[in-house]
Amino acid sequence: MSEYVSVNHLKFLLREVHSIDKVLELNRFSDYDSDSIDMFIDATKEFADQDFYPYLTEMDRRGGKYEDGTISVHPQVCKVLKLAGENGYICSHFDYDKGGAQMPRMASAAAGFITSAANNSMGGYMALTGGSAELIDAFGSKGLWDTYVPKMMLGQWAGTMALTEPQAGSSLSDITTSAHELEDGSYKISGQKIFISGGDQDCSENIIHLTLARIEGAPAGTKGISLFVVPKFRIKEDGTFEDNDVTTAGEFDKMGQRGYVTAHLVFGEKENCKGWLVGEPNRGLKYMFLMMNGARLEVGLTGAAIASAAYHASLQYARERPQGRRLNRSGEKNPSVEQTLIINHPDVRRMLIRQKSIVEGCASLLIRASKYLDLSHYSESEADREYYHDLVELLTPIAKTYPSEAGQDAVSDGMQVLGGYGFTTDFPLEQYYRDIRITALYEGTTGIQSLDLLGRKVLLKNGAVMQALNKEILASIERASTYEALAPYAKILKQKLQDIQKVLMHLGQYAMKGNFERYLADATLFMEMTSLIIIGWEWLDMATASKQALETGQTTYGTAFYEAQIHTMQFFYKYELSKVLYLRETLLDDEVLTILDDAKEVDAFA
Amino acid sequence: MSEYVSVNHLKFLLREVHSIDKVLELNRFSDYDSDSIDMFIDATKEFADQDFYPYLTEMDRRGGKYEDGTISVHPQVCKVLKLAGENGYICSHFDYDKGGAQMPRMASAAAGFITSAANNSMGGYMALTGGSAELIDAFGSKGLWDTYVPKMMLGQWAGTMALTEPQAGSSLSDITTSAHELEDGSYKISGQKIFISGGDQDCSENIIHLTLARIEGAPAGTKGISLFVVPKFRIKEDGTFEDNDVTTAGEFDKMGQRGYVTAHLVFGEKENCKGWLVGEPNRGLKYMFLMMNGARLEVGLTGAAIASAAYHASLQYARERPQGRRLNRSGEKNPSVEQTLIINHPDVRRMLIRQKSIVEGCASLLIRASKYLDLSHYSESEADREYYHDLVELLTPIAKTYPSEAGQDAVSDGMQVLGGYGFTTDFPLEQYYRDIRITALYEGTTGIQSLDLLGRKVLLKNGAVMQALNKEILASIERASTYEALAPYAKILKQKLQDIQKVLMHLGQYAMKGNFERYLADATLFMEMTSLIIIGWEWLDMATASKQALETGQTTYGTAFYEAQIHTMQFFYKYELSKVLYLRETLLDDEVLTILDDAKEVDAFA
Repeated sequence: MSEYVSVNHLKFLLREVHSIDKVLELNRFSDYDSDSIDMFIDATKEFADQDFYPYLTEMDRRGGKYEDGTISVHPQVCKVLKLAGENGYICSHFDYDKGGAQMPRMASAAAGFITSAANNSMGGYMALTGGSAELIDAFGSKGLWDTYVPKMMLGQWAGTMALTEPQAGSSLSDITTSAHELEDGSYKISGQKIFISGGDQDCSENIIHLTLARIEGAPAGTKGISLFVVPKFRIKEDGTFEDNDVTTAGEFDKMGQRGYVTAHLVFGEKENCKGWLVGEPNRGLKYMFLMMNGARLEVGLTGAAIASAAYHASLQYARERPQGRRLNRSGEKNPSVEQTLIINHPDVRRMLIRQKSIVEGCASLLIRASKYLDLSHYSESEADREYYHDLVELLTPIAKTYPSEAGQDAVSDGMQVLGGYGFTTDFPLEQYYRDIRITALYEGTTGIQSLDLLGRKVLLKNGAVMQALNKEILASIERASTYEALAPYAKILKQKLQDIQKVLMHLGQYAMKGNFERYLADATLFMEMTSLIIIGWEWLDMATASKQALETGQTTYGTAFYEAQIHTMQFFYKYELSKVLYLRETLLDDEVLTILDDAKEVDAFA
Repeated sequence: MSEYVSVNHLKFLLREVHSIDKVLELNRFSDYDSDSIDMFIDATKEFADQDFYPYLTEMDRRGGKYEDGTISVHPQVCKVLKLAGENGYICSHFDYDKGGAQMPRMASAAAGFITSAANNSMGGYMALTGGSAELIDAFGSKGLWDTYVPKMMLGQWAGTMALTEPQAGSSLSDITTSAHELEDGSYKISGQKIFISGGDQDCSENIIHLTLARIEGAPAGTKGISLFVVPKFRIKEDGTFEDNDVTTAGEFDKMGQRGYVTAHLVFGEKENCKGWLVGEPNRGLKYMFLMMNGARLEVGLTGAAIASAAYHASLQYARERPQGRRLNRSGEKNPSVEQTLIINHPDVRRMLIRQKSIVEGCASLLIRASKYLDLSHYSESEADREYYHDLVELLTPIAKTYPSEAGQDAVSDGMQVLGGYGFTTDFPLEQYYRDIRITALYEGTTGIQSLDLLGRKVLLKNGAVMQALNKEILASIERASTYEALAPYAKILKQKLQDIQKVLMHLGQYAMKGNFERYLADATLFMEMTSLIIIGWEWLDMATASKQALETGQTTYGTAFYEAQIHTMQFFYKYELSKVLYLRETLLDDEVLTILDDAKEVDAFA
């Protein structure tokens, strides 16, 4: 079996970089210590080795099968959903009294990283079921909870999020699925939803669609959207099922992530589809964002995890494949000596270290985001909870986007390391290459995440949240500066941090003049620039923790592990963070080239 | 049918940017004028519309089929090879007296761009057949010519290039296929070749493998490699065939370009495989580079052409798909007004213009390279022929690599424009995304092209060739500077040109100290930097030609066409050429992070 993840690196992140001990000190987690978390990580790796990784290729080749109105999936999906439910993976962070394990999200994020790296088509079935249950738990009535959540936690019923419609796409204000209140307090649902991940499959007894719809007479736009529970089967009083008129109109045939089915659903074709309102009317989009934000972090995790699998596969190949020779001091190769392993060629090393820098940088960001999530829920003071909640809000679009985008580059490098073999189906790289591409598309494309970052998140609380993030980063810079070897890198990061402010000041002028299209036009570049700096932060923290381990001699994973961390930080700063230089220049450039100017009739595409 | 190429832009490049008239003034081309070239382009577009594009998807879905030792391909391949042969497409630049049309390569490059954009799995069968015939023509005996070339020109027999071996990969000095001289003057060939494009198919009566092998007793390394013609079937004196013991051991199942088969061949399994030496012994690699360089330009053309198809498909989608609304002066969207077309959103426009800037920039470079090829063959003076030959040598790795690499980015942007739909098989974007990925791998990976550029080409004639290129670019800069609106961009390009010198001076210090690994370690970054500047040159020339058309009023393709050219140039300078800023910094940085230091036992990947 190929390796696909570094368990040591995840443990290092949890313990040494992001100090899980601090989180475990909170009352809620009193049953855990960092050793028990390590054991959980090891157990998850065993689960992934046994039930996830061996089905990676099979699930891709088989895909979903749409026949007679239902989609059948690979039987291993059924087995994993059952096992995940039985072993408490689906809602592990729920309270004990709700059947959960009160697991910190830091730990479940690390576990999710492992299972997604092993098989990225599998994780979504679990994650969406967990997210749906969480949504009902947070905003639904006790009746809804009792009816649905226990079965979902056990993996017997699955959950989905049903937002997108054919005519609306990402523009949720245009959704038209309608809800008409019935006498029994339920709603008659009617409409179509597309791109529903796990929207139909033959493993779960029932599938619970968390669905956005418009109650008749609701205001136009996003202010008139409500959230409903729409099950595939209604549950009668005696507990038996009756059909709820949710039709699967088809399955989308996709380039990648083919083991994770994507359905086109029709609600109420026979006017007999019922939904139950979650919370209050017209607040559906707000509620949905609890699940959506979770899903966005999940997508970032998936992107990073696929890139991890690609990195480890190409690393293994490079360590085994002899080809060519190193250059001698005359700039020549001696054909009479044995070939060298390709890992010894500088360009191959560059691609491998680049992959490592992206994969491990992303993992660190995702563990940090989940730490902040834990703190946002369970910190003692309300001020702390709010503080971390805000930071998660700000980091979410970045944690979704950077792993999706840079993850693609990393996987592409991995394929390149294998040369022509990487392009063949004899190796998993080509599948990773196809699979990861979806992460920049679903749960809000990169463009939409970038608008969210620049148009909403950096402006939160008049910029106070951005300032809070700044302070966190400056604290890391200060810690790193105490090590002579790290001080130059700390200084670089500090400069780049000021670049963000400079760019925001510059763009802000457009917003103040009411030119919001111009303010946001280069949001995607702003996202790239900010992401690089955030990952630069992660690497500085990883290097600081490593330096500390080396100086104190507490080198749990061996000296070489920590030295490689510092080396990779240096690489990231030289080859990746340096891109901020040109992104800043482009963002500060006043030339306007991408905005349709209705006044001038120029066709940019003539 | 979707659009996939801008014929107007190709005609604009031929006539107005790269002055095909100057080439047509040469004696050899006296039968052509620019109108007849335009007609040829139009006829090729009709051919592509009818026989290439409609089979794009089918050929992908069907792939090659390996059964009973042979590979069968889509029947349309057979039809196209026949038609291409009959209509003189395969060796169109051959002399009249050799059955060619004395077509300038500028024109055949434009034609190849069209057919590859229509269906990139088809062109290779023709191109490799043409390249093989050219190789026999250039270096083979009259006997070989008479036996093989006429049938190949007619598309009845196909040609391939057989270099790669399982144990050698890109390291050609390690090939072991052997050749033992027989009494009849032929050689007994024995060995294995992998990744042979078009290496087996059921369309052609015979397949002629241009094969590298080692004559017994030849020197080790690349100095002991000879070139052989190894046909699938030997031709007996009476013209009938006999088996030549070339076995197809399998077909590589690939992620993309699935309609273009890739074979694993075994020569001489029954010790009955004969080959005929081309030219002199031990000079095979030198000869092969004639075909290899042609194939590299062809790969660049394919990358650019796939990106063109993706650009036009996503442009069409963006012009038809309503979604979301533009921001008003309060930074809001009014949900009660109709949705806007997505082409009106700045981020979508950015992705589309970026695609255009890459696609058309690459097309211009490839037309330029083919112009230089024409001039290298048919200029009146030997000095001119040598001058242009050297420039082609220098530009070839760039013309292969930039379209492959930036082309991937462009296709990815195209997919992103379609959102989730781009990831489904309902649209061609996902196929383009898979197809183009091979271009950075075959005929020398990006890493190998970059070593070629920095390690060989910039050093040619002690740097004199690089200086000649510099002078060509400076001449363009001077022309552009005469237009006030273009002068600032000309100035930027001039600065970037100096950056190349600065980087070369800096890296040269390592070479002078004998540290060649360090000199070459960042060759891929040097390639990216140089490529951006070269494409910046192309855009400056396109803008100058456009400005000239607008000022003189000779706006053959409409005013908007020329204005869009200038607009796209500005975009390329702001968003793409600006990357030189960080690449330069990284290349000038002395830190050494990617070279294995045997002295220090650090495992960078621990």
